[in-house]
Amino acid sequence: MEHFADRWFAALDTGKAPVCVGLDPMYESIPGAEVEELTQDLETEDQEEALGEDDPATRKAAAMFMYCLEVLELVAPLVPAVKINSGFFEAYQAAGVLGYHELVKAALERELLVIGDVKRADIGHSSRQYALGHLSDLKTQTGFPSPDAVTVNPYFGIDGVEPFLEIAQKEGRGVFVLAQTSTPSAAEVQGLRLADGRCVREAVAGLIDGWSQVPGRVGSSGYSCVGAVVSPTDAVGTRRLREIMPRSLFLVPGIGAQGRSAEEAAACFDAHGGGAMVASSRGVMYPWTVGVGSQPPSDWRGAIAGACRSFIDQVRAAVPGSRTSAR
Amino acid sequence: MEHFADRWFAALDTGKAPVCVGLDPMYESIPGAEVEELTQDLETEDQEEALGEDDPATRKAAAMFMYCLEVLELVAPLVPAVKINSGFFEAYQAAGVLGYHELVKAALERELLVIGDVKRADIGHSSRQYALGHLSDLKTQTGFPSPDAVTVNPYFGIDGVEPFLEIAQKEGRGVFVLAQTSTPSAAEVQGLRLADGRCVREAVAGLIDGWSQVPGRVGSSGYSCVGAVVSPTDAVGTRRLREIMPRSLFLVPGIGAQGRSAEEAAACFDAHGGGAMVASSRGVMYPWTVGVGSQPPSDWRGAIAGACRSFIDQVRAAVPGSRTSAR
Repeated sequence: MEHFADRWFAALDTGKAPVCVGLDPMYESIPGAEVEELTQDLETEDQEEALGEDDPATRKAAAMFMYCLEVLELVAPLVPAVKINSGFFEAYQAAGVLGYHELVKAALERELLVIGDVKRADIGHSSRQYALGHLSDLKTQTGFPSPDAVTVNPYFGIDGVEPFLEIAQKEGRGVFVLAQTSTPSAAEVQGLRLADGRCVREAVAGLIDGWSQVPGRVGSSGYSCVGAVVSPTDAVGTRRLREIMPRSLFLVPGIGAQGRSAEEAAACFDAHGGGAMVASSRGVMYPWTVGVGSQPPSDWRGAIAGACRSFIDQVRAAVPGSRTSAR
Repeated sequence: MEHFADRWFAALDTGKAPVCVGLDPMYESIPGAEVEELTQDLETEDQEEALGEDDPATRKAAAMFMYCLEVLELVAPLVPAVKINSGFFEAYQAAGVLGYHELVKAALERELLVIGDVKRADIGHSSRQYALGHLSDLKTQTGFPSPDAVTVNPYFGIDGVEPFLEIAQKEGRGVFVLAQTSTPSAAEVQGLRLADGRCVREAVAGLIDGWSQVPGRVGSSGYSCVGAVVSPTDAVGTRRLREIMPRSLFLVPGIGAQGRSAEEAAACFDAHGGGAMVASSRGVMYPWTVGVGSQPPSDWRGAIAGACRSFIDQVRAAVPGSRTSAR
């Protein structure tokens, strides 16, 4: 496959905004009346055979999968990418995990760039197994394609990340390494002040930058297949991370339900308005749970499409010079 | 359930050594002639129904599962605990994950303490989903019990860990937070020197210690349900971590194939020879791949049992005063 970052910019060339919809399905948040409808016709062979048993976890995982398919249909014409959060599927163990891989496949079939939000890492020997299962099509032979990119955790250093980077480089895929996360306690580790004056997140950013510029990893866009997860917690710190990692695409979570604004996310972009993809999850999937009111409207499909359009407008307004590869 | 640390000491009271066998199944390392034999009779209902299809991933995942069952049978009479590495199962996506949960169940049925080596963490909202799927029996309702404890990554700070800790406290389970890992690049992040003179792993250890002593988390043994993963990379550093986290059980990887000795692991124990569980994975599962020779002997079952006994003897010799709760 073509280089991951180049594929990202090619998607923007079609006129789409630099955004990404996060799929974090909660069974409890699916519009109530729709659960029955969504699970009535589990018609695909895989669903029938593998999820066919009538236990509660399987039914819930199936409902979540079907709801995500509905959201996919609504947002696929509007956005270039989706991010699928593995944790919400793993809550239902193997039945959920099958739904995750089915959803990756469904999103790829709709020609979306797909980010598997799995946040894995381990010692090298074990990390290689995670990388094979989550980022490669060469080894597993399950019939389920892997996503275009995944998120990984830097705590192990390069040995935990390298198996993912190798596959990314060979197969035209991407890796987003956690640098700054959106959680309130992020500073407990990421914000620790180092003896050299930097903080941990900046040191991690320096590592990511080194990994990003290994020969063969930078595409024709000037961006690498090695990106970073950067929540725009404060503008000065975010601009500093942008400077440290000039070749890394930023995956920018924390918009909407997690409290950050599109304006704050703007600091994640380069001088040409490129280099970042802004993600919104709950704000698009369940717009009625964010802000005023908590009941889904009867036209929940319309509410989702509307929330997605509004999210795109906010990002476009905050990043007016959005760069495409044809700049 | 009774407190996790108390259950650990109760297991030692039966005379078992403070060890743990790691199950890291590699399809490629299973004794060749045995793969056919192992997969001939996939007789359980779950295996038949869910893994019944004849695709390569399913057959490989099934062979790995059957091999792990053989290893379980061999080591269950000898050791108090096993650690099951999720990555090796996730390499085969949903088919592998079903095998992971089946193996957790099989190990619990053999009255072993079971550690799910999943190394998860995310922002709080998402981490809760991981915690529900991997450490609780209350929500998922899949019919597969969760392991007694899991490993988690500290990069997010408390918000990423808390959902696991809450469940551990409520359900008598345990959490092992990564402090020092065995990978050569561990120092890239964990070894960064802080402005206050500590290094990152010591600061993380300080956080873990704080989490470990929250009221309700310390059992009658004096140990908490909040433990730490500590690879004994250097004796001085390891003793320092032992001092910082006096209430945390240490899960000690890196013995055998990863290059650390049982003597080095001894620094992870408290003054009474308690407080740590030493893990060996490849050295027991595939003893013929570690050291001289690489071909499995025809009596591979005997080789595994022998390697397990030898591992136990090494740990007993290195930690002569092994504490039990009846000390």
